[in-house]
Amino acid sequence: MILVNGIATEQLPVSDRGLQYGDGVFETVAYHHGQLRFLTAHLDRLSQGCKRLGIDFQQRKTLKIELHKICGELDAAKTQNAVVKIIVTRGSGGRGYQAPIGVEPTRIISTHDWPSHSEDNASKGVNVRLCHQRLVDNPTLAGIKHLNRLEQILARNEWDDDGIAEGLMCNAHGDIVEGTFSNIFIVKSGMLITPPLDRCGIEGITRATIMDIAGKAGIPCHQAYIRQQDLYGADEVFMCNSIIGIWPIKQIEQQTLPVGAITALLQAQLSALEIVV
Amino acid sequence: MILVNGIATEQLPVSDRGLQYGDGVFETVAYHHGQLRFLTAHLDRLSQGCKRLGIDFQQRKTLKIELHKICGELDAAKTQNAVVKIIVTRGSGGRGYQAPIGVEPTRIISTHDWPSHSEDNASKGVNVRLCHQRLVDNPTLAGIKHLNRLEQILARNEWDDDGIAEGLMCNAHGDIVEGTFSNIFIVKSGMLITPPLDRCGIEGITRATIMDIAGKAGIPCHQAYIRQQDLYGADEVFMCNSIIGIWPIKQIEQQTLPVGAITALLQAQLSALEIVV
Repeated sequence: MILVNGIATEQLPVSDRGLQYGDGVFETVAYHHGQLRFLTAHLDRLSQGCKRLGIDFQQRKTLKIELHKICGELDAAKTQNAVVKIIVTRGSGGRGYQAPIGVEPTRIISTHDWPSHSEDNASKGVNVRLCHQRLVDNPTLAGIKHLNRLEQILARNEWDDDGIAEGLMCNAHGDIVEGTFSNIFIVKSGMLITPPLDRCGIEGITRATIMDIAGKAGIPCHQAYIRQQDLYGADEVFMCNSIIGIWPIKQIEQQTLPVGAITALLQAQLSALEIVV
Repeated sequence: MILVNGIATEQLPVSDRGLQYGDGVFETVAYHHGQLRFLTAHLDRLSQGCKRLGIDFQQRKTLKIELHKICGELDAAKTQNAVVKIIVTRGSGGRGYQAPIGVEPTRIISTHDWPSHSEDNASKGVNVRLCHQRLVDNPTLAGIKHLNRLEQILARNEWDDDGIAEGLMCNAHGDIVEGTFSNIFIVKSGMLITPPLDRCGIEGITRATIMDIAGKAGIPCHQAYIRQQDLYGADEVFMCNSIIGIWPIKQIEQQTLPVGAITALLQAQLSALEIVV
């Protein structure tokens, strides 16, 4: 099911700046049993991303009504779990790169099947690799979930082995920043460490939620760059995003890693959180 | 007029990866009196860009037939000059960033009115500014005219004064690389200098043509980074792209620059070239 500016259609004008330039932002939201999880946080990030790109997005209430409609249709179809993707672009037209004046941003909501990952991913952990493709430092775009995703595409297409769940990406200096579709944490001596995202990477909603959970659980959490040797020397390593929640990482390249108690604790607390629309 | 995979339509599936991730490349071609100028060079760059992104584009002949059809319609409408934009995306669908298998790339051809620039731009020169937004070093994407254009959009939206024709962009080290929609050359002591594009920027067709013309005219041309003081100390500075051709730059920020003979010579030789489809 797809809604473009509230209208059921699978088509978008070719002139939309989302296609022409990747001029927009997106969110990937988990739908579980009638609810869009962490929706407020997703909409906040969407609004912040628009603001940073200079997109005048004032349709948040309208978008929420459309999301409500989508949830109603998923419910009517007895769909328990789905992925709901929201895209907001600067809209259609304009003279080249210059933003058009008086054009309303485009809202696109689409639903997708819940991915059929093995339950072992969350319980026993996954294998990941290190990508060659780098994330470039770009402070004006860092943190935003924008539509310019060629770095992630090049990184993701470095492997086609289904046994590898994710690829970790480094910045130009060789610091590990995140995965192609997830953020990353390591546990070391009872402390959580996750890379800062002020120069590149996407500020994940689940990452922020985990930092919050950790704070309340008395687990110290710091933002610091992680080198390859830090991964191998960690007590636990895990990846996270809005759809998978938390997956322990049990192997990076040829190096095996322990799957531990803090990851399990955070998994349990994250699952227990039920954020209402 | 728009053709999507050969079919006249103004719409594209929302699932197209061009929209979802900016997963594609584009070309902007000048149509003059029945001909698409430098089409072979544009199609070569399109193919090379696809190759570098791992897009299996084998529809070059089909695309040429569709372009021929577009030219026929422009001719039938007695349109003398137009801008023809070609977009090729990786196609529709796929599981997240991973490229889908067996999906044909999407071909989009659209025609646009020829821009109504003052003739003075080419004869007397234009004013340009220096942008704050940087071009980040990304060797795997450098040179390609891909659909991830947020840097250019942020740069272009730094000003809305119609008296400023272009903004020059620097890399992270402060070297001037190119304009938001053009390449740049300086003339110094009878020699042409243009920045290298192996770390960021787009390898312009007109830039390559000018280097070729200069070579044949016995004007030495080197690729070297340009600093702000090199601009101000230059004998001549000009910008170029496929639509504007060559425009002398007569003012950068508050600094005026001479409009000189080598720029005029290159303009004349570029205009004289008639490359057939």
